[in-house]
Amino acid sequence: MSETYVHGYHPRENERLQAQAGTLVDLLHSDTSYPSGSVVLEAACGVGSQTVTLAQRSPDARFTSIDISAASLAEAKRATDAAGLTNVQFQQADIFALPFAPESFDHVFVCFVLEHLSRPVEALAILNGLIRPGGTMTVIEGDHGSTYFYPDTSAARRAILCLVELQRLAGGNALIGRQLYPLMIEAGLEAVRVSPRMVYVDSSRPELVDGFTRKTFTAMIEGVRESALEARITDPEAFDAGVRDLHRTAEVDGVFCYTFFKGVGEKRRRV
Amino acid sequence: MSETYVHGYHPRENERLQAQAGTLVDLLHSDTSYPSGSVVLEAACGVGSQTVTLAQRSPDARFTSIDISAASLAEAKRATDAAGLTNVQFQQADIFALPFAPESFDHVFVCFVLEHLSRPVEALAILNGLIRPGGTMTVIEGDHGSTYFYPDTSAARRAILCLVELQRLAGGNALIGRQLYPLMIEAGLEAVRVSPRMVYVDSSRPELVDGFTRKTFTAMIEGVRESALEARITDPEAFDAGVRDLHRTAEVDGVFCYTFFKGVGEKRRRV
Repeated sequence: MSETYVHGYHPRENERLQAQAGTLVDLLHSDTSYPSGSVVLEAACGVGSQTVTLAQRSPDARFTSIDISAASLAEAKRATDAAGLTNVQFQQADIFALPFAPESFDHVFVCFVLEHLSRPVEALAILNGLIRPGGTMTVIEGDHGSTYFYPDTSAARRAILCLVELQRLAGGNALIGRQLYPLMIEAGLEAVRVSPRMVYVDSSRPELVDGFTRKTFTAMIEGVRESALEARITDPEAFDAGVRDLHRTAEVDGVFCYTFFKGVGEKRRRV
Repeated sequence: MSETYVHGYHPRENERLQAQAGTLVDLLHSDTSYPSGSVVLEAACGVGSQTVTLAQRSPDARFTSIDISAASLAEAKRATDAAGLTNVQFQQADIFALPFAPESFDHVFVCFVLEHLSRPVEALAILNGLIRPGGTMTVIEGDHGSTYFYPDTSAARRAILCLVELQRLAGGNALIGRQLYPLMIEAGLEAVRVSPRMVYVDSSRPELVDGFTRKTFTAMIEGVRESALEARITDPEAFDAGVRDLHRTAEVDGVFCYTFFKGVGEKRRRV
């Protein structure tokens, strides 16, 4: 995983990821739980935003959560320790050079990872090789191209495109959510079922206005301001106008829409 | 309702609207049913694509379905007659000049109408005036800006924008779905709750590939080819390339996403 991580590794970014995980837990994870005794690989756990939820929802499964960043793993360990979890072990590893035997896991879980990789199918195929026949792979990704809002402005759309472009320059793909089905099929998974998880926000849902529109999505865009200026794909006035317009969608008559995609596939059984 | 109806009144368009209604019935209407004895106004029923479903799902409610077009009403009557329904009466009328007494309906139902109006809030406010205190208004609209797909191409996106632009030129708004919440609030409805109804299509759902991607959405875009050329907002090569790319999303590795919005609000009770 040699790509640059577009969101960086700053403390404020960790806060954003934890806020995001809190707001979206039910939407994304309510239908994921693993049976007692299952051995599960969480690939690229980052700061553990999903790890705590995963491990809490499957208290009798055993998780191995890997990441390429030692600093992120330390953060993730603090999070699971703080939650009193004892069913997670952490290990520093690269998805493209994993130290695990073939078919040594019952299930694999991958969340917000593929968007950062230039070879997502190769990563999925490698992970698929680690699953026992009949086991499952669960993949969750966002899609920044699924974003639309009211009031709609071109400035806000252009600010979002800055992140899409930065992610592309870093070798990733911020529009990957819509592509989960063909990617998982190409990687060899079977019986793939993708379901969209749409976040719809209007002022009758104040917890989402604050937790998603402001503190997750708009904060994510604001977080790439310096990188976008350095990459010369925007200028301060245009970018700041776009961010102002995104904040405008969090006002009383505003609406904000974003969609995550969750795919579950099965490892081919032996015949 | 003096606006031009962007989709026209041709037999092939009626087929498209009927196919659309068939594919989407559960997604859009499964949570709409009216109690026995309710008196319900369906505003702008068109050719009756929704009327049959509505009346079947609430067999003991009585519907008055209006439309400005006598030809559409005749078609709608044929559809309800063919379905053996006896709880619908049709009446030719303009939403902006309705022949009904204030508060004379228990509920109002409006589907795929606001997108064609230049004064959607005024229409909703007029309809709100016809509801008894404590009754409900249900509004369903699409949003062509909610469309995204894989493979993503600018030609396909531009072809869709032709319909958005035609609808704008005709006084309507093809992006109105996302705006339902503020529109209904502004029209005076209370306790408004909007829910998105996303259509997600990949090749594991062949009935949607055919019924939605091809025969509903792409057919709708193809249907405005002549109008778009006449309005000089595209040229034949660009438009046809876009339509080809939309058909491409219906192939085995393609994905197509579209979202409808359904809002339900309550008529203010007397204090």
